[in-house]
Amino acid sequence: MVQEVKNMALDTKLEAYAKCDVYPFHMPGHKRSPLAMPNPYMIDITEIDGFDNLHQAEGILKEAEARAAKLYGAERSYYLINGSTCGLLAAISAAVPVKGRLLMARNAHKAVYHAAYLRMSAVTYLNPCVTEFGIQGAVDPDEVKQKLREDPKIVAVVITSPTYEGIVSDIAAIAGIVHAYQIPLIVDEAHGAHFGFHRMFPETAVRLGADVVIQSMHKVLPSLTQTALLHLQSEYIDSKILEKFLGIYQTSSPSYVLMAGMEKCIRLLKEQGEMLFESYAGKLMDFYRKAERFSKIHLMNRSDFNSGELYDLDASKLVISVKHTTMTGNDLYQNLLRRHHLQLEMFSGFYALGMTSIMDREEGFHRLFSALEETERDAVLEEQDGQKSMELIRKLYAPKKKRAELYQAMELPIKRVSFQEAAGMVSGSMISLYPPGIPILLPGEIIEEDFLKNIRKCPEFQLNLQGIADIMNEKIDIAIL
Amino acid sequence: MVQEVKNMALDTKLEAYAKCDVYPFHMPGHKRSPLAMPNPYMIDITEIDGFDNLHQAEGILKEAEARAAKLYGAERSYYLINGSTCGLLAAISAAVPVKGRLLMARNAHKAVYHAAYLRMSAVTYLNPCVTEFGIQGAVDPDEVKQKLREDPKIVAVVITSPTYEGIVSDIAAIAGIVHAYQIPLIVDEAHGAHFGFHRMFPETAVRLGADVVIQSMHKVLPSLTQTALLHLQSEYIDSKILEKFLGIYQTSSPSYVLMAGMEKCIRLLKEQGEMLFESYAGKLMDFYRKAERFSKIHLMNRSDFNSGELYDLDASKLVISVKHTTMTGNDLYQNLLRRHHLQLEMFSGFYALGMTSIMDREEGFHRLFSALEETERDAVLEEQDGQKSMELIRKLYAPKKKRAELYQAMELPIKRVSFQEAAGMVSGSMISLYPPGIPILLPGEIIEEDFLKNIRKCPEFQLNLQGIADIMNEKIDIAIL
Repeated sequence: MVQEVKNMALDTKLEAYAKCDVYPFHMPGHKRSPLAMPNPYMIDITEIDGFDNLHQAEGILKEAEARAAKLYGAERSYYLINGSTCGLLAAISAAVPVKGRLLMARNAHKAVYHAAYLRMSAVTYLNPCVTEFGIQGAVDPDEVKQKLREDPKIVAVVITSPTYEGIVSDIAAIAGIVHAYQIPLIVDEAHGAHFGFHRMFPETAVRLGADVVIQSMHKVLPSLTQTALLHLQSEYIDSKILEKFLGIYQTSSPSYVLMAGMEKCIRLLKEQGEMLFESYAGKLMDFYRKAERFSKIHLMNRSDFNSGELYDLDASKLVISVKHTTMTGNDLYQNLLRRHHLQLEMFSGFYALGMTSIMDREEGFHRLFSALEETERDAVLEEQDGQKSMELIRKLYAPKKKRAELYQAMELPIKRVSFQEAAGMVSGSMISLYPPGIPILLPGEIIEEDFLKNIRKCPEFQLNLQGIADIMNEKIDIAIL
Repeated sequence: MVQEVKNMALDTKLEAYAKCDVYPFHMPGHKRSPLAMPNPYMIDITEIDGFDNLHQAEGILKEAEARAAKLYGAERSYYLINGSTCGLLAAISAAVPVKGRLLMARNAHKAVYHAAYLRMSAVTYLNPCVTEFGIQGAVDPDEVKQKLREDPKIVAVVITSPTYEGIVSDIAAIAGIVHAYQIPLIVDEAHGAHFGFHRMFPETAVRLGADVVIQSMHKVLPSLTQTALLHLQSEYIDSKILEKFLGIYQTSSPSYVLMAGMEKCIRLLKEQGEMLFESYAGKLMDFYRKAERFSKIHLMNRSDFNSGELYDLDASKLVISVKHTTMTGNDLYQNLLRRHHLQLEMFSGFYALGMTSIMDREEGFHRLFSALEETERDAVLEEQDGQKSMELIRKLYAPKKKRAELYQAMELPIKRVSFQEAAGMVSGSMISLYPPGIPILLPGEIIEEDFLKNIRKCPEFQLNLQGIADIMNEKIDIAIL
């Protein structure tokens, strides 16, 4: 661990952290196992002769993008250096004209909401179910069908698959439904850039009929943070318009260090991907198999879900549940960090989540398993009132009534008021359960009495909220219509 | 120089280029002189415990931003990892409500136009004069005064100072005028992050009353490409709204490698800035002094401008003119590159531009001067018809009539037609003189007969246009109203 020094500079602390023994079960997927790269300043250039221009790629960057497209089986792929964020903004902006109507899964990344705001979209939501883990399930193809039937003005559909926790939706079925309306399906596959490389993982949406697929390269692959790919293969989205928006949402001075990292990653996958994924899948399967012997703590797997709750599960995310013990997710997370120097990605109510990748070493899986064995040994069984917590989460996620569209409410002046005053008013901010960061109330939606009652209970159930002005003093931001 | 190999990977080519002897008189300002940094993968993390969150900075990143603010004398500074681009988008979005009216200098970076588009702004332009070099001069404070008087609906003013070529406007005077209308002045100081550090350079707009100042750190300072700062000190722009937009236009997974580089740069300036700038100014002054002996080629300096054409000049940009010789700017640029392995930033009609920074070594200035001595020796004097070229450039930059606002035209379908058919129609694309990339015709503006006549002459005068569908076959994109 890094010794805390007051006013330590960021670079100094990062360099100290790099030397400590904390093992990363979190993003980025390179797991700080350095691929060969010189000092970044040595290769950090601008668009000089021979090095092409990302915003009008015709040379070496066009070739690099073509290699990425070939690897994933896409018609066309774009390098992104402002993360999946800019890919989502650009794809939705290209698919939805100003004031066009968008159908989106409620458990979308905030960039999807931001895109709806920028395009002044009227938004209809798909509401995935809440499973026993308090994790949102897959998007139901039937709900897509129904919502599209109800509103013929919808011009595009956006869903997230896999989710942060690895829930995969039935992309092929949904694409079929969406295309019957001759509109595009955009899939936020930010957490699934490793899909399609091994039978242990689901197929990528690129090969299942999605029109646009956006993948963070850094989340699960050995690539530098902030790098992503956008794959395009659509009759419904014009590449020229998409490129216009990529030119808007990305800096005119893209980093060659980030782009060099993407090229390295794509080459590694092409040349050694099969071997790396085979070895990784072996380690992962072994871990799941061994975890079966735990009886107090539990490693989430497909059999935990009812039919219809998910289409598939991404095993790369280790969701470790302590629901049947006296521990909370935070207890587990802190115990793994403080005692075992294992940094997990996040925790929520009754679980903590560790992310793995092809760069994980035997050492990492071994240390995590040993730590979990110790946790299992010391854990005290207690049937927690998980039902109450799940019930609360379900209530929090329940669809809300809206008085103004998101884009309208996001432009309104805000006033901070007490919960009491707020009842019946319109929300001025996005309030999310964090992690995973899924909104439970959006600007423009009505703040019901019941909602206030429910959020008051969140601290008791270890549920963190983001976007609430001040939960301790019961203050919330309302929009002034 | 790097040997060209077909299908060479980007990272391989960058690493080969790092080892060759080409000296960089271009961005980024670290000049590939590596500051100490470990392999980037070692310090590339995500928002784990102790490393704060750029989008809600409360710890180490907040402290880092505070150090940047202190260095520049700003009330508040923000780290940007999507370049000045996202700073311009966010500042303008925060200052201008949807459909609000914006006053902007025509020689703005495309991000300013993009912001106007996203906010559906009605735009009024400030038109800087064209100087003898074909370079646009400063923004005239009187024009600002006049335009603001004519249109009381204007809610914000955006200007670029310094320009790509180093032209500085009178920020203090313009800020005074703008503030009399109780609206904010946003200054794109992307090329001026070195301002205020030495008496040889102009004062930064941060200290001259601008409300928001956006600086690229990588352009002129030793920082990685894609890094920038936004300084805020305004009665008219709400920091919460600005932060909302920074959260929209920047990835939710910001790179700690880029941020570590910013911290390093700020610390270097704080601890060694005085010494580095003193030494740099000495080298630069020496270079300008020695260049006075040239009689055929010419190094642009303040005395080349008429009163009113500029307020100040940034000497860090070396504008080398060959106007009085038989050479073109391209000839000079190619000669310096091919023969002397000196990579300049850009060329235009009769000049080439080299960028310098505190990281330039004696060797660089020496090699450039020797190369220019040789160029001077071999140059053949010829009074070129510079007047005709200047006249053409002035005509190209002349204000255009518009039939639709930029944001309306940018949403319209496009049709590719011949010049003949295009006369009298509405432009569907942004056509720019490149470099420096200043638009001469915008979407929504009318394509006059005269304009078509003038752009036909561009190739003859070595003026490159961007955004013309096909200049050789006289095709242009029109918007279908």
